Amino acid sequence: MGKIRIGIVGYGNLGKGVETALSKVDDMELVGIFSRRGPESLDTMQPAFSIDDLPAKKDDIDVLILCGSSDTDIPEQGPKYAAQFNTVDAFDTHAKIPEYFQVMDEKAKSNQYVSVISTGWDPGLFSLQRVLADAILPDGDTYTFWGPGISQGHGAAVRKVAGVKDGVQYTNPYPEQLEAARNGESVDYSSQTAHYREVYAVLEANADAEIVEEAIITMPNYFEGYETNVHFISQEELDEKHSGLPHGGSVIRQGQTSEENQSVYEFGLDLNSNPEFTAAVNVAYARAAYVLNQDGQSGAYTVLDIPPRYLSPRSSEDLRKEFL
Amino acid sequence: MGKIRIGIVGYGNLGKGVETALSKVDDMELVGIFSRRGPESLDTMQPAFSIDDLPAKKDDIDVLILCGSSDTDIPEQGPKYAAQFNTVDAFDTHAKIPEYFQVMDEKAKSNQYVSVISTGWDPGLFSLQRVLADAILPDGDTYTFWGPGISQGHGAAVRKVAGVKDGVQYTNPYPEQLEAARNGESVDYSSQTAHYREVYAVLEANADAEIVEEAIITMPNYFEGYETNVHFISQEELDEKHSGLPHGGSVIRQGQTSEENQSVYEFGLDLNSNPEFTAAVNVAYARAAYVLNQDGQSGAYTVLDIPPRYLSPRSSEDLRKEFL
Repeated sequence: MGKIRIGIVGYGNLGKGVETALSKVDDMELVGIFSRRGPESLDTMQPAFSIDDLPAKKDDIDVLILCGSSDTDIPEQGPKYAAQFNTVDAFDTHAKIPEYFQVMDEKAKSNQYVSVISTGWDPGLFSLQRVLADAILPDGDTYTFWGPGISQGHGAAVRKVAGVKDGVQYTNPYPEQLEAARNGESVDYSSQTAHYREVYAVLEANADAEIVEEAIITMPNYFEGYETNVHFISQEELDEKHSGLPHGGSVIRQGQTSEENQSVYEFGLDLNSNPEFTAAVNVAYARAAYVLNQDGQSGAYTVLDIPPRYLSPRSSEDLRKEFL
Repeated sequence: MGKIRIGIVGYGNLGKGVETALSKVDDMELVGIFSRRGPESLDTMQPAFSIDDLPAKKDDIDVLILCGSSDTDIPEQGPKYAAQFNTVDAFDTHAKIPEYFQVMDEKAKSNQYVSVISTGWDPGLFSLQRVLADAILPDGDTYTFWGPGISQGHGAAVRKVAGVKDGVQYTNPYPEQLEAARNGESVDYSSQTAHYREVYAVLEANADAEIVEEAIITMPNYFEGYETNVHFISQEELDEKHSGLPHGGSVIRQGQTSEENQSVYEFGLDLNSNPEFTAAVNVAYARAAYVLNQDGQSGAYTVLDIPPRYLSPRSSEDLRKEFL
């Protein structure tokens, strides 16, 4: 059987992660990386093309993995390419997923392609675990903890504050809240009571540290209501100690199986590289998109709609024998 | 829409767990409990019948949940009832699953029913997590830890030793091994190096404690090669402190997403009642069996073959909106 031929659209952290993830699998091959930037400017050993060359490659690509941003790229590229390719994306604007699903479903169905949307870990694997846990333990509560890890949205918000030259933000669960949830104890959970934030920022030459700190910790939607600790450090220290993109978190459901007995269902991820792991999830779902389409399916799919075995390169016989 | 009508076959711990689990869901109703014992001998408020009455109830039952033992009951009852009903079971003899799948697939397919086999947590949810983790992180290692919890097979083995009046056995992971796996450290894993065993036994009046202990800790396939601590206690203490059926465990996969970066994927269960949780999983898969059959499907299915949303009573729209 031939390999599944993959195209990557966008060459930021996620696109690079997909390139790396593809090097770890035997049943897929990378046809090319498609970028708005000139292909010669991409720092890759793989074939690189302008995004405008995509339509001409239609017959050479089995699945296109969309690696652009969820705020501007995916809402535009998703529907466009769903009409020409099987696609996978990691669209993560939770509130807009239902609407995005509808658009993608129509485009993909009317063109006989499969689009797997909103893969990754949250949304993605975390969503899948929430649904399983809720279905199995209907009488209970689910808690999600994020971190310790870099929140790119919060880092971007910090960097927009006047007087900040550079900076990053870590989201951390309170260890005692996480432990309590794991131990099946009652948890007074809200995002604010379960997490605290650590900011590492570099000040502009003339900036007033106190004013900058106040501007950060009182920022609505991002920091207000959270315990936030701001650390001013040098650019060198920031570059040396805070240039990674670790992340992770846990989904925990506590459920009563009877009056007397409780079950705790826990799923956790601890990722040295958030984009590389998200990319690895995208690649597994690209395999599923291909298989679904080969099976004659079309339309939009989420992680909730796909049998787990479709993610694996192994045969059903092998999976039953070795993994069940 | 009418409720999904469930029949329970067998009224041991698992059957009782299914009865309890059904009381937690709104979209299913219990038609009856079918047992080889006389229905009047079953301690239940629910309708109870002889197992011989099952064929007459064929049209009143949407899914039959088979709660007998994996060693003798399921291999006989599975194929028999797969030809007359949609079924769900928790067949857990790992080595015989491929063969059992074939038999069930033929019976169910030729009679237009769906049989979901080997649900529960191991096999079951643990299998599902192993497949997901392996598909997403192809370059890595998966470790399974069991316990702390009661292993019923090991307890039964202890109770067969001459001089033992009663007893139970706890399987426990070594905390340092479990921590190392979670922390992404290299683990020299085998079932024996990762687990130790605690036996609580009541001696017969004339038994020699030393001889009994030696017979337990050297028992091949069960205790030999494991660190095993035997505690002799009174029947009263055994009844008071060790009559529950807690269990649980973890599936942990460490995978390299690149040369530099590792991900740790972890799934854990901590169950006050193993049979109640296993039953809850069976009930969720009974829903899936019903939906699959309503969709016109037939044949044998495992947890690897079923889209996660089929386990949930919620609509796809709700799941996308609330859980994704």
